[in-house]
Amino acid sequence: MSQSLLETIDSPADLRRLDRKQLVQLAGELREFLIESVSQTGGHLSSNLGTVELTIALHAVYDTPADRLVWDVGHQCYPHKILTGRRAGMGKLRMRHGIAGFPKRCESDYDTFGVGHSSTSISAALGMALAAKHKGEGRKVVAVIGDGAMSAGMAFEAMNNAGVADADMLVILNDNEMSISPPVGALNHILTRLTSSKTYNAAREAGRHMLGFAPPLLELARRAEEHVKGMIAPGTLFEEFGFHYYGPIDGHDLDALIPTLENLKKLKGPKFLHVITKKGQGYKLAESDPILYHGVGKFSADQGIASGKSGGKLTYTQVFGDWLCDMARADSRLVAITPAMREGSGMVRFASEFADRYYDVGIAEQHAVTFAAGLACEGLKPVVAIYSTFLQRAYDQLIHDVALQNLPVVFAVDRGGLVGADGPTHHGTFDLSFAACIPNLVVMAPADEAECRRLLSTAFAHPGPSLVRYPRGSGCGAQPSGELDTLPLGKGEIRRRGQGVALLAFGSLVAAAEAAGETLDATVVNMRFVKPLDIDLIVELAGNHSLLVSIEENAVIGGAGSEIERVLGERGLNVAVLRLGLPDRFVDHGEQGQLLAELGLDKEGIVRSVRERLTQPNQTESRQNSRP
Amino acid sequence: MSQSLLETIDSPADLRRLDRKQLVQLAGELREFLIESVSQTGGHLSSNLGTVELTIALHAVYDTPADRLVWDVGHQCYPHKILTGRRAGMGKLRMRHGIAGFPKRCESDYDTFGVGHSSTSISAALGMALAAKHKGEGRKVVAVIGDGAMSAGMAFEAMNNAGVADADMLVILNDNEMSISPPVGALNHILTRLTSSKTYNAAREAGRHMLGFAPPLLELARRAEEHVKGMIAPGTLFEEFGFHYYGPIDGHDLDALIPTLENLKKLKGPKFLHVITKKGQGYKLAESDPILYHGVGKFSADQGIASGKSGGKLTYTQVFGDWLCDMARADSRLVAITPAMREGSGMVRFASEFADRYYDVGIAEQHAVTFAAGLACEGLKPVVAIYSTFLQRAYDQLIHDVALQNLPVVFAVDRGGLVGADGPTHHGTFDLSFAACIPNLVVMAPADEAECRRLLSTAFAHPGPSLVRYPRGSGCGAQPSGELDTLPLGKGEIRRRGQGVALLAFGSLVAAAEAAGETLDATVVNMRFVKPLDIDLIVELAGNHSLLVSIEENAVIGGAGSEIERVLGERGLNVAVLRLGLPDRFVDHGEQGQLLAELGLDKEGIVRSVRERLTQPNQTESRQNSRP
Repeated sequence: MSQSLLETIDSPADLRRLDRKQLVQLAGELREFLIESVSQTGGHLSSNLGTVELTIALHAVYDTPADRLVWDVGHQCYPHKILTGRRAGMGKLRMRHGIAGFPKRCESDYDTFGVGHSSTSISAALGMALAAKHKGEGRKVVAVIGDGAMSAGMAFEAMNNAGVADADMLVILNDNEMSISPPVGALNHILTRLTSSKTYNAAREAGRHMLGFAPPLLELARRAEEHVKGMIAPGTLFEEFGFHYYGPIDGHDLDALIPTLENLKKLKGPKFLHVITKKGQGYKLAESDPILYHGVGKFSADQGIASGKSGGKLTYTQVFGDWLCDMARADSRLVAITPAMREGSGMVRFASEFADRYYDVGIAEQHAVTFAAGLACEGLKPVVAIYSTFLQRAYDQLIHDVALQNLPVVFAVDRGGLVGADGPTHHGTFDLSFAACIPNLVVMAPADEAECRRLLSTAFAHPGPSLVRYPRGSGCGAQPSGELDTLPLGKGEIRRRGQGVALLAFGSLVAAAEAAGETLDATVVNMRFVKPLDIDLIVELAGNHSLLVSIEENAVIGGAGSEIERVLGERGLNVAVLRLGLPDRFVDHGEQGQLLAELGLDKEGIVRSVRERLTQPNQTESRQNSRP
Repeated sequence: MSQSLLETIDSPADLRRLDRKQLVQLAGELREFLIESVSQTGGHLSSNLGTVELTIALHAVYDTPADRLVWDVGHQCYPHKILTGRRAGMGKLRMRHGIAGFPKRCESDYDTFGVGHSSTSISAALGMALAAKHKGEGRKVVAVIGDGAMSAGMAFEAMNNAGVADADMLVILNDNEMSISPPVGALNHILTRLTSSKTYNAAREAGRHMLGFAPPLLELARRAEEHVKGMIAPGTLFEEFGFHYYGPIDGHDLDALIPTLENLKKLKGPKFLHVITKKGQGYKLAESDPILYHGVGKFSADQGIASGKSGGKLTYTQVFGDWLCDMARADSRLVAITPAMREGSGMVRFASEFADRYYDVGIAEQHAVTFAAGLACEGLKPVVAIYSTFLQRAYDQLIHDVALQNLPVVFAVDRGGLVGADGPTHHGTFDLSFAACIPNLVVMAPADEAECRRLLSTAFAHPGPSLVRYPRGSGCGAQPSGELDTLPLGKGEIRRRGQGVALLAFGSLVAAAEAAGETLDATVVNMRFVKPLDIDLIVELAGNHSLLVSIEENAVIGGAGSEIERVLGERGLNVAVLRLGLPDRFVDHGEQGQLLAELGLDKEGIVRSVRERLTQPNQTESRQNSRP
């Protein structure tokens, strides 16, 4: 490399001054920068290596930010961030007060839509395209969506709408034949057919010539006019939806990408470009194991991710995965379902050992939950493994298909609470609030890993719907037993007896509460159950304490603490209550422990809040006033 | 009609003893019974008239209930209920303690899956089919889904999964070219092509002969084997998903339906049968206006629904519809979005007067909300009109795409609270709980129709996301002004000053609270805002009342009352609080007023609860105990 081009790129305008050869050089530099940078900060790697050329081509061809570029999910946006003035920021990627790992509107004008969850890009882009039309603005709108994200119902809804909405928009299918897990579902078969050797290899050359170098606009226009299907490859599915399908083309070849985009930019109506990329492209280790290199911690760029020495504490995810295999062995009714998160949810071993009882339904949370309801109707015992934040996608199905029918489905809800570096799109901070109000549902939060296993067994034994919510990462390291024993439903556990103040802690914050209890000489309870609450215990504590403090790693609005206050009020037990939890604002990305400390949910914060509350002048005053 | 056959049918077994000619007679009788019955009770009509023959054919061919029949949405299940032992029950359809308007597992073994919301049937049926496979049971599973429901993402997710899951199941597309509103979206175009005169008319005859009378199994098997597409009609879309597509056939012709189903029953794998029906079939009035006859009150079967004399009070839905047109006229940035509920949401006039600012996105709640977010990004002011219960379908999008990005989208949430006859699948009883915990979101509940208009204007003027939640039907009849004036954010209104007790009421229950306040000589407040709460007012009331009572038509868990307790606790204002709302169980169908009375949320109930609370012995006792 003669000279660093990358260092001269502070915005896409700089990039647009480069010739094709320089852009190819830039791609090489960008890829090296990415590997070096992510190896030092951790983050998403494989997906970003796959979009280097596509990102360069898009910014070269489109007039960003005036033209709108919407990245689906966003874990492929690092090249975009680097080229839009945030190269220096990559050193603090996903760190507290550093740049986010996903596009974020408040971070840059180039981030047109905040993402994190899958399959929103076509909907958002359609909104932007129709707004431009409404306002008579000629701006272009492009959505880039992966083949995994394309399988979600939401993307289908948007395609179904966009195909008839007469919108000027381009949907780029970034087809890397991967979800985070290997791809599943019929759509994947369709795409595989579209990119089968015969059609794709022909296209690889033909596409370059026809779309790239020959007078292509006429050709494209003719296709659009005549609605000819299957000239290069069939693309029937997308044509059926009213999109004009182009491709597939090689997404690592700027000589194919740039002329194609230049031509598509001139065409009206909904267009669909099928681009083939490779996750991990250009970094051999990631190419050969894109799943391992999907989301990484720090590692040596030369030697790759060190294997073997996991050591340390089990994560909750591993505790779940082990329990799942053990319970499956003990009970043949167990079947397990994941919406495309085999690795993240700790189901790799289960998927291999119990292949016929394992269902990866694709990125399809709504379907996953109702599918589980159908299985439960027939006497099976489905376990749905899902991240807290993604369960939001299936809220109606949880209520309408599972809880209303009182079906015995177990929800193993991972990433409850703050998740850290992934930030506000991924924090699981509302689940206790949105779940507690659902009738029939048992809601549990284990205090440690050993209890997590016991509560999973408790959930599995329960004849109705239940949910076990546990945090990302590890807890205090309590080693789970090998047993499948259960705990009594709706019963908490007194961890410490103290004076005056009782700390009623849920799940991940029991440990901090216990530490605070030592300092305060307070009673400390591991509540275990958000629902049903241990009312007897609460009534008892209300009788011999002057202040009850609820503590949870969940929105303080409507969470577990809310129910404690309600049962007290219902019984006329007018004891003072302080509710601690996450504040009524979205919490940024950052290290989990640091965020909890900032929000007053570590030991010191709990001690501080309790002391403040005890010295509050209003309290007794109001209690005087409130005497009936 | 020589003799009533219908009266001899107490279960599908009786029906299976009839010959083809008798089944045709039965269909006629069933249709007459339906019209007569629904005209006396109200309920769904058009959709049920459309499924008379299909229902007879399914129960004639399949061994229900051992074979599983899953109705999508369920508003077409009356013929099914009538033929499965519930004929007599139709006289109390949708009434308190009468049979439900939707399939319900606890009501009958023939109701294999409880429905109400759209597009769940394929997911549930797939679960049942894979469970049968898992258990080695040979039972058949059939899902019946309408063309409207087919457009929802969830159905796509299920098709995408089922096509590769090697499940023995049949999906019947009941294509009546209708959603509740006219159909929209690309899928509709595809279906129209499939049923265009050329293919369908040919199929109508060919289908009867080939599938019906010729040795058909061989023919079908050959098709399956060779995966021949487009023999009768292309069906490409469904074939692409791995289903074997058959049809279209005439869904009112038992001579086509029964032999086709008999043959399909013998085939393995995922099968897709396209059936053409007519909403309202056999009742001229409903045929010519299926939307009017979709959901009806009582009417004269001979003369049809009396037109013109609506008179009486405006519904909240009408108040919204009028406001929408007026605000659209005043502000060109307003655009409005409905997920296929033009009529139900009161948008008929807007759709006609502001056609270019009206977006019916199909049954696609997820897309609707993120599409609105995209529009808002570009400076438009989207209003999403949605039923409370259907907003559950877009919970993640509300959090992740709208609230997190703090975009100014207005949610006009109709059917908040108990909806009456439609029952638990349609009650909007969780919205205040699931919305209150979302940061940035303003949540409002008007006390009457006039205030509803003002709060809609307030929402529209607010620069962030907001939600106005109003009940089904009318309130006290307060006539809205023609103005577009706003109310101050986060400020409640004292309606009555009293002694000792303050009733803090939200939205639909303000009127009942006011009446109760008269009896109790209590202070009564119309809170208006669930979020932001009027904290100053609450603090003031806490200072001069001994008991605060929150009153809301929402789950008592996590709703508006929860926040009142929290802000009091946070400030050390230890006044007694009683939280009134809907209990922690699903509420059955029944007349709204009757249900509210049973649940203690009418005037008498509120008075009773307050008096009980005031005489509770625990209260002072515990307050003694709780002295710090």
